[in-house]
Amino acid sequence: MEPGSSGRGPGGVSVSAVLPAGGSGERLGGATPKQFCAVQGRPLVSYAVRAMERISWISDIIVVVSPENIETMKTIIEKYGHKRVTVVEGGITRHRSIFNGLKVFAEKEFSSHLVQKPEVVIIHDAVRPFVDEDIVSKVVMAAKEHGAAGAIRPLVSTVIASAADGCLDHSLERAKYRASEMPQAFLFDIIYEAYQQCTDYDLDYGTECLHLALKYCKTNAKLVEGTADLWKVTYKRDLYAAESIIKDNLSQQVCVITSVKETLAQVGFLLPESLKSQIKVEAISISLSKNDSCLQNIISGQCYNFVCVNDKRCAIQETQELVDMLEKSNIPLICPVVLISVHLDISENNSFSIGMEDLAMIKKFARETKKKNILVYGLLIQYK
Amino acid sequence: MEPGSSGRGPGGVSVSAVLPAGGSGERLGGATPKQFCAVQGRPLVSYAVRAMERISWISDIIVVVSPENIETMKTIIEKYGHKRVTVVEGGITRHRSIFNGLKVFAEKEFSSHLVQKPEVVIIHDAVRPFVDEDIVSKVVMAAKEHGAAGAIRPLVSTVIASAADGCLDHSLERAKYRASEMPQAFLFDIIYEAYQQCTDYDLDYGTECLHLALKYCKTNAKLVEGTADLWKVTYKRDLYAAESIIKDNLSQQVCVITSVKETLAQVGFLLPESLKSQIKVEAISISLSKNDSCLQNIISGQCYNFVCVNDKRCAIQETQELVDMLEKSNIPLICPVVLISVHLDISENNSFSIGMEDLAMIKKFARETKKKNILVYGLLIQYK
Repeated sequence: MEPGSSGRGPGGVSVSAVLPAGGSGERLGGATPKQFCAVQGRPLVSYAVRAMERISWISDIIVVVSPENIETMKTIIEKYGHKRVTVVEGGITRHRSIFNGLKVFAEKEFSSHLVQKPEVVIIHDAVRPFVDEDIVSKVVMAAKEHGAAGAIRPLVSTVIASAADGCLDHSLERAKYRASEMPQAFLFDIIYEAYQQCTDYDLDYGTECLHLALKYCKTNAKLVEGTADLWKVTYKRDLYAAESIIKDNLSQQVCVITSVKETLAQVGFLLPESLKSQIKVEAISISLSKNDSCLQNIISGQCYNFVCVNDKRCAIQETQELVDMLEKSNIPLICPVVLISVHLDISENNSFSIGMEDLAMIKKFARETKKKNILVYGLLIQYK
Repeated sequence: MEPGSSGRGPGGVSVSAVLPAGGSGERLGGATPKQFCAVQGRPLVSYAVRAMERISWISDIIVVVSPENIETMKTIIEKYGHKRVTVVEGGITRHRSIFNGLKVFAEKEFSSHLVQKPEVVIIHDAVRPFVDEDIVSKVVMAAKEHGAAGAIRPLVSTVIASAADGCLDHSLERAKYRASEMPQAFLFDIIYEAYQQCTDYDLDYGTECLHLALKYCKTNAKLVEGTADLWKVTYKRDLYAAESIIKDNLSQQVCVITSVKETLAQVGFLLPESLKSQIKVEAISISLSKNDSCLQNIISGQCYNFVCVNDKRCAIQETQELVDMLEKSNIPLICPVVLISVHLDISENNSFSIGMEDLAMIKKFARETKKKNILVYGLLIQYK
């Protein structure tokens, strides 16, 4: 479904997303803008793109970057196999960049290929890597109903206003205010209208899209309580935090692969069912000999744990194919990959000792793959 | 200088500190209140206490904890050898806890031993581990002049006000507002007066000390721009960030120890001077055979790198004494300790080969200490 997915979002609306990624990352203190900083070997922007990409009903993802980073961004898209992404040149401020992103949907000369104008557009930050479908969906639904919507969070610190002499003028009552976070969503026509009307002052000094929708289209955005993980990577400590969260997630995700055979597929269904209360499980039923893009996506999504349920007869071959894919992906360079090869013996005749011979082969194979940072374990199940 | 140091702070005022540590850490998600969460094996509150303790002109540090955590806090103080600390029982809200902390200085029945009322009192959070002398000093100076002062930071997100229907009412212009952070400082009489006058509503629902000083004492606090590392550990991701920052700092700190002999002390002065542009250096000149509390403090402050400049003749013995101290401190359990033993040969007669014999002994010794996660290296310098 490229360039755009034809799926419909919550409430049956068509949805696309704009990700401003043009910031210079001054507050981070470093030469690389924060959206391009590597976290576990992958640029931050790639996590945000992936988060949007995983939501099947988002048609197009417009990433807006400053002119000097267009090639970098294109390389990232290619390297991590991102789909449905269009790279657009940004302006000198955040609002100008978002406006450029929106123009792709509305003005032919801004886009070299067909990008369908959506009913609802999501605006999210390239430096907020942890956004899940649930909050995006809530914000889109609210935008459909109210014209505009945005995620909010409680304030962490009291907000104060200072007087001209650098002294406290007044402090705000914390409970009455909220921090405006991302994602936000808008009926496309509303936010585009707002951007067309707004002044140069707005474009140069403003930061808040909800404010533009209110000021120019009299649309009071619906505020949606978001989760703590919506936070924006701003300082160096946030990069540390992002890295730790990503590492944590790595060990909490497993991919169960079964071949398409009926008996195996049944196991492939039951295993994820019993695992899913403990760990995040992706279950796919495919033939490993075919180059499957779904599995490729899971691997490039940095899944480090695999359970591969095979028919005993082709176990070694299938394990070898998965190891080849993992090696090519380069992910074992960052962190060891654990691969449990489950051999399901469904024949009535085979003796236990023959099964053990296969396991001995796996053991030898595992010794080789260990050098590549891929830890292979074999498990024989006689199933009668 | 116990219980209180008799030093004078910036501007010649006497200074003490109150650290409210009574929070329940709901936002963190977990049973342990965040101030007691271990970061690199040490509770967060201990970092904040240490940060205050390192500032020699702070006389007393009052840590306010909820009744059920008094024993925990006392154990922490003992374990990490904190000095000048008094533990006080907190109230059910932040303001009530701070008020209890202040009462220790003003009301006899609240304190079992003598705690001198300071001219300026610092209020800092137990969950802000990274506060350095510079900002504390600025805030104290400003409080002396203005009656009240507090650290501020730019807002990370736009702040908005919501209407009763959960929709956006208005957004604040980000540039005009600041986040109020810690540390704050007050002329003791002003903040104590404010707490005595404030209502139950203030005590139960308020959070901002600067606000109380303004409301009840007409004191407009001076706002002091703080650094990014003043942030408050609020969410789980902040614990991750704190951990990474602490790990980073470990490898950026070295302690140079020299014996009190004149020639050695000279080297011990020159070495830190030339290192200090590269790395944070603590330099002390002591006799290792005496149980020095300054060195104990550095070790319990989790310094992992030591350079020990010895007279050649007692090198092995002094190295052994330092290794014993390190072992007892338990810090090598967390991370390897690097100890470079520099043997300074200042005699005219010794041949190079005799020096080498000593190094061979160090080599043998190093093999043993390696098992204890202490890496000893020997360096012989003939100095004529």
